[in-house]
Amino acid sequence: MFESVRLPHDLRKEDFHALEERLREELLDAQFELAEQKRRCVLVLINGSDGAGKGEVLNKLYEWLDDHFVETLSYDQPTEEESLRPGAWRYWRDMPAKGRIGLVLGSWYHRALRELAIGGMSKDAFRNTLEEINRAEQMLFHEGVLILKIWLFMEGAKAHKRLDNIREPNGALRRAVVLEWEEIDKKKERERLNAAALEVAEVTSTGSAPWAVVRAEDSRYRDAAVADLLLQTLKRATQLQAKPSPVARSHLVPETALPRPSVVSALDLTQKAHPESYAKDLLKLQRRLTEFTTAKSFRDRGLVIAFEGNDAAGKGGAIRRVREALDPRRFRVYGVSAPTDEELARPYLWRFWRNVPRRGHVAIFDRSWYGRVLVERVEGYCTQDDWLRAYQEINDFERQLSEANYTVVKFWLAISRDEQLARFEDRKSKPTKRYKLRPDDWRNREKWPLYERAVTDMVDRTSSRLAPWNLVEANDKKFARLKVLRIINETLEASK
Amino acid sequence: MFESVRLPHDLRKEDFHALEERLREELLDAQFELAEQKRRCVLVLINGSDGAGKGEVLNKLYEWLDDHFVETLSYDQPTEEESLRPGAWRYWRDMPAKGRIGLVLGSWYHRALRELAIGGMSKDAFRNTLEEINRAEQMLFHEGVLILKIWLFMEGAKAHKRLDNIREPNGALRRAVVLEWEEIDKKKERERLNAAALEVAEVTSTGSAPWAVVRAEDSRYRDAAVADLLLQTLKRATQLQAKPSPVARSHLVPETALPRPSVVSALDLTQKAHPESYAKDLLKLQRRLTEFTTAKSFRDRGLVIAFEGNDAAGKGGAIRRVREALDPRRFRVYGVSAPTDEELARPYLWRFWRNVPRRGHVAIFDRSWYGRVLVERVEGYCTQDDWLRAYQEINDFERQLSEANYTVVKFWLAISRDEQLARFEDRKSKPTKRYKLRPDDWRNREKWPLYERAVTDMVDRTSSRLAPWNLVEANDKKFARLKVLRIINETLEASK
Repeated sequence: MFESVRLPHDLRKEDFHALEERLREELLDAQFELAEQKRRCVLVLINGSDGAGKGEVLNKLYEWLDDHFVETLSYDQPTEEESLRPGAWRYWRDMPAKGRIGLVLGSWYHRALRELAIGGMSKDAFRNTLEEINRAEQMLFHEGVLILKIWLFMEGAKAHKRLDNIREPNGALRRAVVLEWEEIDKKKERERLNAAALEVAEVTSTGSAPWAVVRAEDSRYRDAAVADLLLQTLKRATQLQAKPSPVARSHLVPETALPRPSVVSALDLTQKAHPESYAKDLLKLQRRLTEFTTAKSFRDRGLVIAFEGNDAAGKGGAIRRVREALDPRRFRVYGVSAPTDEELARPYLWRFWRNVPRRGHVAIFDRSWYGRVLVERVEGYCTQDDWLRAYQEINDFERQLSEANYTVVKFWLAISRDEQLARFEDRKSKPTKRYKLRPDDWRNREKWPLYERAVTDMVDRTSSRLAPWNLVEANDKKFARLKVLRIINETLEASK
Repeated sequence: MFESVRLPHDLRKEDFHALEERLREELLDAQFELAEQKRRCVLVLINGSDGAGKGEVLNKLYEWLDDHFVETLSYDQPTEEESLRPGAWRYWRDMPAKGRIGLVLGSWYHRALRELAIGGMSKDAFRNTLEEINRAEQMLFHEGVLILKIWLFMEGAKAHKRLDNIREPNGALRRAVVLEWEEIDKKKERERLNAAALEVAEVTSTGSAPWAVVRAEDSRYRDAAVADLLLQTLKRATQLQAKPSPVARSHLVPETALPRPSVVSALDLTQKAHPESYAKDLLKLQRRLTEFTTAKSFRDRGLVIAFEGNDAAGKGGAIRRVREALDPRRFRVYGVSAPTDEELARPYLWRFWRNVPRRGHVAIFDRSWYGRVLVERVEGYCTQDDWLRAYQEINDFERQLSEANYTVVKFWLAISRDEQLARFEDRKSKPTKRYKLRPDDWRNREKWPLYERAVTDMVDRTSSRLAPWNLVEANDKKFARLKVLRIINETLEASK
């Protein structure tokens, strides 16, 4: 791949200066347009062998761009904070808002390459890692994040020589330039790295995020080429239609117009807890949960619980019973309502990724990432294409959690339409509960059949082996609370 | 996944009849529109556990559709002809033309599932197989093939009972209904199969080809649901815009406007063969090639050679020297020019897939699948999106060949512009050669720089580890012929 990069590339000084003037001007214009529109963000992944000038390119871009709208995202060995969470968390945490440019050093590719070069990752496992990257990048593209992947290429010997030049007098490498692979010093390992880099480019040069390989010996050529690639990406980011998602037209919706049973209407909602043993049963289940989450073995695990359900189904009450059993230093409850400005400026999964707990901790989401395929679908807050692709994206998200040792437990709390009405009336009449009733609640109630359909699709498409849905009959609140606790305990038991 | 399918589904007789009338009418209309437009073809993959009624669904569809435009593609154990070629070959061979509907029994999913259930495929390897299917299906979608994937679902026990019912009096299973998995008789294997099916649905329910799971106990519901799903797919196929390819707008083209070196202009075209030793050298190389391709070890391998190059670069002469060394019963040369009507009605890779040789044989392509990124790109015969996605598709194609034990050797024969002119003039003046010179040749010559750029991109993006490009300096025909033979021999030697 990229044979032509082995040929000499250079740029004469006077050509460079003429080009530079034009590039700077156009870059600033395009950047301004991007910031004005606030529709997309651009990530520039600056990759390459050590000594190819990643740091210098970065400096040049800072010189040419308006640095108010640029940020550097630089990744080295994971910090303690990072290593306690799934691998992708640190990239999500730093995701720039729409309108901005992120310059990334030490991207997810470096991590994959390093694992392959140093560790004993199998060929199939490595390939899977790359396909996961492809899926994630495609998702980001649809969410308005344009990714420019640059590989600064320099022949091995030359890069080595350059590397020597930038050693400090005491022999240490200058950190700013040499970020990731200093520990890969042996020739054999370097060769493996080169072979891996080639495979990476072959597999991850996709339609939504292809690679650009730039010859880096001549620094004028290198800087001008990177700047020109960035310029084109910025133009593309501002010219793409308002709603990118071309998947839109590509989706086949496999739905029949025939009557389809609903997973929730099939539930037996008459189930009740025994009133006399309830308190005892509850305490027992809570104690068990406390044991699980304070055990030494839990330190290497995380627990993520998502609560969804009809309005007034008793999510809050159930969450309270779970919360009571948890060490207050080790859990957090996130109430999910309308997204903030910050959240709206980023891919929809960002608000959940940022709150993925450290291992040893518990996160409880009162409503969750399923909003996209529930309220956003039913209310038309996103396009059909958006919620259709979300099923796969959510499965990918939850798989990443599972593979990073997190237990994911998902609940749908179901009540009947009559029961909901009774609870609404009750809320309306009691001053202490009145705050719980929003005008939206009545409106949503009108759309009961649409929600029921959305719930069935959601359960059908996201009840995966690693994170199955749990439907909870909640007409009797006590029954629901016991069932919730029992399922959490059983899931923890099974995933021990 | 697909929890709702576990709930009872049925359709009363009178409802079914009303529906049937409407469905038949609409199906015929939609089918007619599809056949008229000739823009897309529809594949219906009818999958499901044995005894779920795959054969009955097929019969019903034949009853309701106009069978002039329907074909059944049914796959069982590979035939001898099939097992001598890459796994995907048999599906390619049968690809219906645009305007038609293919009903597929025993699709590529059955093969993957069977391998997992019976063989000892690793988790990662299985996952890779599925991702390859995803990529292939996405490619087919962009090429105008809409795929409806149906899983007929029936609870295990019920399916088993049904299976008993359709045994012949002598105990044999009726073939028409039970196609693929009769050999998987043990309960444990069946369970593994179910688990695998679930994983398959999780990973391969993509935007371009999602799964539809249909409850199959009630045959009225089952048939009506499948027909309704097909109807919607047909409507979609006829309503999608003329040029599907939404990737179009999604592609970032990572090209700089800076001067880029061309891989061919860097070649030293002055290289010449020694006139006195040429005949001897040629013979020696040809003998070596004969040895390789007649050796016993070659029976399990295939050899696919693609020749590309400038007009008048000497492809024909080089091919003749290769051909002379081969057993006439075991090779075939395919001259690739404008596609036939049959070829135009199918994905562009079809004309090459159909000519993939059996193992133990050699196929030589005089021009090849690279036409898409060369002449089709330069002359605008396809959209930018088409040729941009083609790089990845071609890499996938060649990887499938390599993994099926084929050696792929690709040549670009390069001559200088002056040399080309001299050869054109020579052709013009000699009656025996005049037929070789087409008016197109002069036109293409005008576009030399565009072709040079296309060649550089092609080499950069498709020179993979498994199938690297070989650039051949061809101003001296003899030099080129020797180099071609030498490279074929070396590649065969390396892949032994």
